Amino acid sequence: MPLIHQNALFDYSKKIFEAANAPAEHAERIARLLVKANVAGHPSHGVIRLKQYVEAIKIGNIDPQAKPAIEVDTPGYANVNGNRSFGQIAATFAMDVAIKKAKQNGLSMVGCYNMYHVGRLGDYVAMASEEDLIAVAFCNGGGPNVAPYGGRERVMGTNPVACSVPSSFRRSMVMDFASAASAEGKLREARNKSERVREGILVDKYGNLSTNPNDFYDGGSILPIGGHKGSALSLMVEVLGGSFTGGRCSVFEDYVEGNGILVLVMRPDLFRKRADFDKDVELLYSAVTGSEKAAGFEKILFPGEPEAEQLEKSLREGITLDDKTFEIISGIGDSLKVSFPATSVNR
Amino acid sequence: MPLIHQNALFDYSKKIFEAANAPAEHAERIARLLVKANVAGHPSHGVIRLKQYVEAIKIGNIDPQAKPAIEVDTPGYANVNGNRSFGQIAATFAMDVAIKKAKQNGLSMVGCYNMYHVGRLGDYVAMASEEDLIAVAFCNGGGPNVAPYGGRERVMGTNPVACSVPSSFRRSMVMDFASAASAEGKLREARNKSERVREGILVDKYGNLSTNPNDFYDGGSILPIGGHKGSALSLMVEVLGGSFTGGRCSVFEDYVEGNGILVLVMRPDLFRKRADFDKDVELLYSAVTGSEKAAGFEKILFPGEPEAEQLEKSLREGITLDDKTFEIISGIGDSLKVSFPATSVNR
Repeated sequence: MPLIHQNALFDYSKKIFEAANAPAEHAERIARLLVKANVAGHPSHGVIRLKQYVEAIKIGNIDPQAKPAIEVDTPGYANVNGNRSFGQIAATFAMDVAIKKAKQNGLSMVGCYNMYHVGRLGDYVAMASEEDLIAVAFCNGGGPNVAPYGGRERVMGTNPVACSVPSSFRRSMVMDFASAASAEGKLREARNKSERVREGILVDKYGNLSTNPNDFYDGGSILPIGGHKGSALSLMVEVLGGSFTGGRCSVFEDYVEGNGILVLVMRPDLFRKRADFDKDVELLYSAVTGSEKAAGFEKILFPGEPEAEQLEKSLREGITLDDKTFEIISGIGDSLKVSFPATSVNR
Repeated sequence: MPLIHQNALFDYSKKIFEAANAPAEHAERIARLLVKANVAGHPSHGVIRLKQYVEAIKIGNIDPQAKPAIEVDTPGYANVNGNRSFGQIAATFAMDVAIKKAKQNGLSMVGCYNMYHVGRLGDYVAMASEEDLIAVAFCNGGGPNVAPYGGRERVMGTNPVACSVPSSFRRSMVMDFASAASAEGKLREARNKSERVREGILVDKYGNLSTNPNDFYDGGSILPIGGHKGSALSLMVEVLGGSFTGGRCSVFEDYVEGNGILVLVMRPDLFRKRADFDKDVELLYSAVTGSEKAAGFEKILFPGEPEAEQLEKSLREGITLDDKTFEIISGIGDSLKVSFPATSVNR
């Protein structure tokens, strides 16, 4: 399994996007966010996506030169047309708009549609908490991959929800989770490593529970978390990210692959003194991380902490790519005449 | 198992609350919402709660005469102090505020804290869709009942999320789901019926998986849906409903039993033509309900439809109370000198 330094992986990814006709500024932003996912321990949302993005440019699902534009604009809310840009570019733009409005107005809601995949939703809500704001985001699309409760056919996306909470006591808390039992990329990762997945994550094309990720790619479906509960959450995200913003739903016949997002951003002190808010969040943090552990757990982590721990490890030790991912992403370089950094291929 | 007509159950519940010192208007609203839960097939949130509410009045957790008041007020957002009123009274008040602001402003966000239990969260978001608005609500408190991912101790509430979506084609769609594998009331219901629950819903006080609802009442914990995903959702709801509004968290030492809610309400046509929104929601509905069924399912229902079906059945056939629930709620009447309607006790 090749081990690579994050900077080398970033340089390579950036060159790939530039070779695929993205402006340097866009290439840099997307490369940074993809590599960040690898660094944070979510390779499913990392450079494994390079091939998919380059292919999306080829078939016109991404316009690498496109810039997003505000279509609806009021002091408290706005909607952004991604103009088929990279999801990372459009979502960052939308977050900037939401953050600016929330600072002025206290509260803002911003939608964004007609863009390609955004990557990890948590990265965008974290932009708000870095500015001392709370953010909640809903993201649909990227499917269909998930069967509704009672069904076995792919209808919904994996439809993540994310929330970021600033704190005066510690780093921001970032919740970021699919409303499905697995992100699609996690199945791709398991397939590339020839690993099985847990029971309860997917059904094969006949509707039978399966632990083989290949069964998903052979016409199976991912299941929602918690049966009818996750199914309802997923449909809520379809409506908010899709029907409401104009992002539509991935099950539609005329769907163009990508994501739709709806973001809510607000000042943490709208309703209470900031110190009271902070103190209560910290009390919650202590109650969670200090509570009795279940069997098999050494400690209880707050959402966002596993990623922070993995980040430190990756910065220290480098990023390990599985062989299949290495083969795929170095292959893209070959086709675009970008060579994979030689220093990195070892271990 | 006693069978009772909804009107008789409503009259009885209303008299109970009046006898417990609630103004007629409050008694009527709370009785209506509790009986509605029974009618809709969610007895866990229905008249089974009568005893708990009357006891909460006795120990001062509910002030039956209290009225909620707006504390923070701007055109786009507001926060409501429930003043320890019934949750149903405070949440209805908060929704009225949110609906009025959303009509004027397009978008509104309203918090509400310092109240007792609100009952079914779906009832409040449905108030918005009845006025042709979308609503999303987060509700914390009522616990602690749920262990965080990696833990076995009760830290979070069951923390429901609800969303209601108006439609020009059919009745509003109401999603309403706990971020825990079970509402606490569902365990109470199973215990009263001496039934087992599914595996994966709860652990006993030692952290072992259990299907015996008594193990929860003996110091066990409910599990979040989807492991770390539902745990993150639950913590997000704790922050939004609790830390942000002032509702605080049920794990805190100085917590006073009740709920905190945060509601977002908006016009469905903020970002797109109303007809386009409606059409996309309808396409989603058709895709879900028309997709291939999993084994054991006769049809795929959209969220809110099981409740609507049960409602029709209850109106036709009456409401069946299990013997334990009957014993408990008729017992409260004895103590308050309100007699249980004689016409109802049969079958």
